[in-house]
Amino acid sequence: MSTINRQIHLVSRPQGEPSTANFALVEAPVEALADGEVLVRIHYLSLDPYMRGRMNESKSYAQPQPLNEVMIGGTVGEVVESRNEHFKVGDKVVGMGGWQEYQRVNASQRGVLQKVDTTHIPLSAYLGAVGMPGVTAWYGLTQIIAPKAGETVVVSAASGAVGGAVGQLAKARGCRVVGLAGGPAKCEAVVNELGFDACIDYKAHPDLRSLSKALKDACPDGIDGYFENVGGMILDAVMLRANAFSRIAFCGMIAGYNGEPIPMANPALILVNRMKLEGFIVSEHMQLWPEALKELGTMVATGKFKYRETVAQGLESAPEAFLGLLKGKNFGKQLVKLV
Amino acid sequence: MSTINRQIHLVSRPQGEPSTANFALVEAPVEALADGEVLVRIHYLSLDPYMRGRMNESKSYAQPQPLNEVMIGGTVGEVVESRNEHFKVGDKVVGMGGWQEYQRVNASQRGVLQKVDTTHIPLSAYLGAVGMPGVTAWYGLTQIIAPKAGETVVVSAASGAVGGAVGQLAKARGCRVVGLAGGPAKCEAVVNELGFDACIDYKAHPDLRSLSKALKDACPDGIDGYFENVGGMILDAVMLRANAFSRIAFCGMIAGYNGEPIPMANPALILVNRMKLEGFIVSEHMQLWPEALKELGTMVATGKFKYRETVAQGLESAPEAFLGLLKGKNFGKQLVKLV
Repeated sequence: MSTINRQIHLVSRPQGEPSTANFALVEAPVEALADGEVLVRIHYLSLDPYMRGRMNESKSYAQPQPLNEVMIGGTVGEVVESRNEHFKVGDKVVGMGGWQEYQRVNASQRGVLQKVDTTHIPLSAYLGAVGMPGVTAWYGLTQIIAPKAGETVVVSAASGAVGGAVGQLAKARGCRVVGLAGGPAKCEAVVNELGFDACIDYKAHPDLRSLSKALKDACPDGIDGYFENVGGMILDAVMLRANAFSRIAFCGMIAGYNGEPIPMANPALILVNRMKLEGFIVSEHMQLWPEALKELGTMVATGKFKYRETVAQGLESAPEAFLGLLKGKNFGKQLVKLV
Repeated sequence: MSTINRQIHLVSRPQGEPSTANFALVEAPVEALADGEVLVRIHYLSLDPYMRGRMNESKSYAQPQPLNEVMIGGTVGEVVESRNEHFKVGDKVVGMGGWQEYQRVNASQRGVLQKVDTTHIPLSAYLGAVGMPGVTAWYGLTQIIAPKAGETVVVSAASGAVGGAVGQLAKARGCRVVGLAGGPAKCEAVVNELGFDACIDYKAHPDLRSLSKALKDACPDGIDGYFENVGGMILDAVMLRANAFSRIAFCGMIAGYNGEPIPMANPALILVNRMKLEGFIVSEHMQLWPEALKELGTMVATGKFKYRETVAQGLESAPEAFLGLLKGKNFGKQLVKLV
């Protein structure tokens, strides 16, 4: 009797805001392993904003998510069957298993499946602080913003997995760190749990003038670095407070994921303030992952790095949890727990 | 009897587009020299787009031009009197004399006045190809765009002093070079005189779609580097054709000098294409001027660098010539000839 693998497929492309109707739960048998293959029982799915971009058909830096196939995504789990000499039953692994309960994968290709050590670091952290979001934060901060001690670094979506990591890595480098997050509860936690110097509730500042004033108050010496996770009015407000020679790392533009391009109000400030703006995709800089993961892993294992997780239960909850992520309903890393 | 020095002062700040009424011709006596001072008879004034920004009161990277004082600007001329041991009568010099016929200057401060050699390079070229505009082109191209041979570099205001230099420096590095200029006559000369591979008449493409299509035709392999002199719709059109890892050097935003901020339509492309955008002010990088001037001077002296000059006659013509520059009426370096 074969094991049943439940999967979530993308079955239609959203026009504007996505809905649960774009997804379908599908059952498929787990087929027998071929030589070199490994079967992983997935424990956690990672939900990330980049997935929204993949749901569109339009050309971007990555191929679109194909219709009627398992939604892509990072996963952690445990090897339950192996025909590969490098993996044995019981190994904890991180990979790109997608939205399903079992991942059957040829593990001979380098990098497809990584064994991880859960002695000092919880398995789920390999999808967050010690995974892609953590490295994303590390890359944008250290390679683009490259802050000096005493500089002011601002990060949007500060309570998210990437934003929280940016702030803590910047604090460790002696910066003043100011977050932006939605709602007083998130802002309070960003300051009191994650250790930011200040956090602005952008929902309390519905217009550019008000938000710009709040940034001025929180950043009395101006802004030297900005880690951009959202785009839109927050970007405009930050640029109004940017110092000469400031740097912006473009990591995400969640405000524009639903199709409508959101303009930058005053690009002349790039010249006036001699700014540098740079976009990046962390998967294009694999050579730096070991250095990043070393710092992040050490911080997590020694308790110097704080993070929260928002955990949805069961595969069938993934679409709803993903829609919530796009609306900022999560706090910290959004996961789906399968086991 | 003292010599009369005619000067042009800024007497009011423009609201929007400037007019000749913002300027006034003023006569003042040339006072006797103090120790260390030099009197220069100015031969050419340089007119440059950056002066428009200085006419505004608002905070920018430089102090505003004060009212009722001589308009700032680069100048070349000849020493006619000297109480400084490093300068003698007859020396050709470049400095920041401003819009006047005589410059009385304490030449003891390093860099205030530079002697130049006119054996192989015409005096006026020190305000253009072998001066600030040439170094501006060199800096943005080599330090920000940093093109590889075979890449495509686009430059706006291609028939201007900076744009023409960008294109020729990029051609010398093995790039495909495409200009943008206003009108068929300028475009024809950009290709046939300056040696660009192609030049697009932006006036023939009044909307984004049409301009973007023209760029696609002229840049079949996309755009790797863009030297931004104008802002506005041209920037948007270039970004639609930008390759992954492309670079934009922000040198000028002439389209927005009259006060109205011009948005960037789709900043998400910075992320999608992992672009780098960087603004710069050439006077902040004085340590690189010798290297830049060496390359530019050698190219001019050996006839490998083509440039045009548009020369207005007499100090009183400066305001009108400056307004024409802002409207793109010049071809190449805009000068005012005083002697």
